[in-house]
This record gives sequence, structure tokens and C-alpha cells, in this order.
Amino acid sequence: MAGRACFRVALKSQASWLLCVFWVWTLGGLCGLGVTAPGAGGYAGALHPCQAPQQWEGRQVLYQQSSGRNSRALLSYDGLNQRVRVLDERKALIPCKRLFEYILLYKDGVMFQIEQATKQCSKITLEDPWDPLDIPQNATFEDQYSIGGPQEQITVQEWSDRKSARSYETWIGIYTAKDCYPVQETFTKNYSVILSTRFFDIQLGIKDPSVFTPPSTCQTAQPERMSEDCSL
Amino acid sequence: MAGRACFRVALKSQASWLLCVFWVWTLGGLCGLGVTAPGAGGYAGALHPCQAPQQWEGRQVLYQQSSGRNSRALLSYDGLNQRVRVLDERKALIPCKRLFEYILLYKDGVMFQIEQATKQCSKITLEDPWDPLDIPQNATFEDQYSIGGPQEQITVQEWSDRKSARSYETWIGIYTAKDCYPVQETFTKNYSVILSTRFFDIQLGIKDPSVFTPPSTCQTAQPERMSEDCSL
Repeated sequence: MAGRACFRVALKSQASWLLCVFWVWTLGGLCGLGVTAPGAGGYAGALHPCQAPQQWEGRQVLYQQSSGRNSRALLSYDGLNQRVRVLDERKALIPCKRLFEYILLYKDGVMFQIEQATKQCSKITLEDPWDPLDIPQNATFEDQYSIGGPQEQITVQEWSDRKSARSYETWIGIYTAKDCYPVQETFTKNYSVILSTRFFDIQLGIKDPSVFTPPSTCQTAQPERMSEDCSL
Repeated sequence: MAGRACFRVALKSQASWLLCVFWVWTLGGLCGLGVTAPGAGGYAGALHPCQAPQQWEGRQVLYQQSSGRNSRALLSYDGLNQRVRVLDERKALIPCKRLFEYILLYKDGVMFQIEQATKQCSKITLEDPWDPLDIPQNATFEDQYSIGGPQEQITVQEWSDRKSARSYETWIGIYTAKDCYPVQETFTKNYSVILSTRFFDIQLGIKDPSVFTPPSTCQTAQPERMSEDCSL
């Protein structure tokens, strides 16, 4: 799960990048642990995590507590080939915000960061192993509820990495109950939200696989990560 | 909109209460201003805000940036009679967290805060006028998208109080496109999220109107707000 957080956190600021490394270090052990407690409430024992789609495209809004900011992006997720492409979307005219494209190729252990305006490219080593965007089989069932209202709703389930009633979670995943589409993922520490991502406009499949091919400017890529802030 | 934020913010800590007062003071003017810019993108000019249901019950998760915490509650919303009841839900065993019930009666200008365990009651004056939980008619259309995926999705719309492409919003409301059920409301300041509330399990109508009647302990209510922290 830390890995999953990271491919999104990694796409953001330097501070987040460091935070991400910190997470892998602190949470890495948690993610592999078995969570054998039965599900909560009336669903105890009856529910197992669904499997999320392995290839899809959509949009995301990522919220980071450190900055308080929401950032929007188009997302191409290819779990079969362990690669992700994220294209920053401009929402409003935020002064001095550079927009990037990110191509993460986990099989090669590299991430390309491409500035959308100039095509300037950085090639950065991915330290984390691939961790798919779905619900771990040993996750704990937390809740099931509907979003929307009568005649216009979807049923979703919340899963977490909580291990008992007395512990608390560091990850919460919200997925639709039937086809397991991702709706929201949240990472917390000491009950506090660190980052949260909402997913929407999900379409199955990858329309154009070339989105995972870096542009020619990446042949002479620099090794330093570029800052989001245009003044730096 | 400040008012709407407040009935939820007001239900939380003292700090939030003060923050709320600050908002009313700073944002109060904004809320009444006309937002006449046409909708964004391909929907320009075609869309008008829908009207949200006036009586419903459901659940909410409120996120506050100041604490980083998510808090869950059951919600009874009676727009016709300008009253709201919020019942804290215990999610996990957070040490030293007191759970409250809040009854806000805007026509009377009072809020009752009742500790669930002891029924101890505080009666507090509501400073803000009633402001319904829906989309103001002068709101700006921001976006329309689906949550979920093929065959399992709802279409929602985002509306804000943004006034032009060069300004930014302080409020974003997400409502379902057809029946206008609230899905999420977010308040921001300088691009940063201050609080965000997700709504779910919405049922139309008020099953038991007596939830808006304070318990007998409120006949001798204290005027001081009780702290959420049991050590205080």
C-alpha cells in the first residue's frame, strides 16, 4: 500500500517525495502483514476484497494535507505491465504552477517527469517496488454504504489495513461493491489524513498504449527532479 | 455557504467554532454576491443548479484540515423547518474522544450539544442565519463526471462560488446530476482545503421527527460548549 501511495505522492513536490520514502521505510513492514480479523459489523466473515480492474483510464483529484492543495490529473493505469501515466490537469489559473506529465515504469524501475509546456524531461529511479492499485487480500472490511440517493446511487465498500478494534488504520480504500472500481484512497498517520485521492470518469482498457512511451526529449533526460514551482 | 459550513464546523472543536465565526466575518460578503459567469467547458450556459432534497437523513464524514481528522456522524437534515441533527458515530477506539449529539434549531437561533454518554447538555446561541445545504442559484458550474465505472456509476456535478477564470473558489459542492443528492462539500482558502464533508446512505424524509427534540437534561442546560477531549 505504501508503494501505491507513492506512485501518486511521488508525482508531487519534493517534500512529498521525501515523505514517500519515509513512508516506505515506516509502513513497509505493515503492508506485508496478515490482517486476519473478520470484517466489521453485520458483514463479518462474509466479505472478501474484490479485485480492481487491471487496465483503466480516468481522472483523479489528489489532496495532500501538507500543502492543503487539491491537484487534478488524467490517469492511465496499466497493472498488467506495471506502469502508470499521470497528466496534470490545469484547474484554475494558479500563479506559478508548472504542469507535468509523469510516466512510471515499474518493471524498469524508472519514472519520467516531463514538463508539459517545454517537454523538458527528468529521469528518476523508482525506489519502491510495484504495488497495484487495489485491495490487499488481507485487508479489513470497514463499512459498506451508498453514495448518491434513492434511484441514483452506487454501493461502495471501505477496506483498511487496521488489525484489531483497538488499533487504527494507515490506509483506507473505497471501491465499488460490484465491479471494484476505485473511488477513493486515503492514507493516515495517528488518525490524521496525510493524503487522499478520489478517482472518477473511469473507462476500462488503455485507449492509446503510446502514452507510456516517453517523448524524445527524455533521451537526454536530467537526473534531477523538477520543482512544481516555476520560481525555482 | 458560510452558514452551511458552520453548522457542521460548529459541531466540532472550540477552535473550529472560532474559525467558523471568522469565516462568517470574512466570507459572509462573498456568499451573497451574484456569480453570473456561464458554466465551464461544453456545458456553458446550458446548466443551472439543481435543487437538493429538503428533508433527508444519512451519514457524513467530515474532514478538518486543522486537525487532520475525519469524524463520522449520522445526519438528519430538515431544510423546511431549518433544523439539523448530528449524532457522532464512534469509528474506532480513539482514546479520550467524547461523542456528542447536536441539535441545531435555526428558527430559534439555538444549538443543543448533548454528550451521548451522560446526556449532559449545553445550549448555545447560533450566530449565523440559516443557509440551506444545496447549490446557490448563482453558483458557477465547474465539472461533470462519473463516480464508479461502466455499469456501476453515478453522474455528479461540481459547482463553486468562483467568479471568473482568474479567481478561485472558497466553496465547492458536488451533487448528483439527476436528483441533486449531496455527495461532497469542500471549503477552501487560498487554494487550500479547510474542511470537506462527504455524504452517504441518504434516505429521503425524516423517519422520526422527535430527533429534533432535545432531551429533558437540556431544560437546565449550561451555556458553555463542552470540549471533545475528555481530559478537559
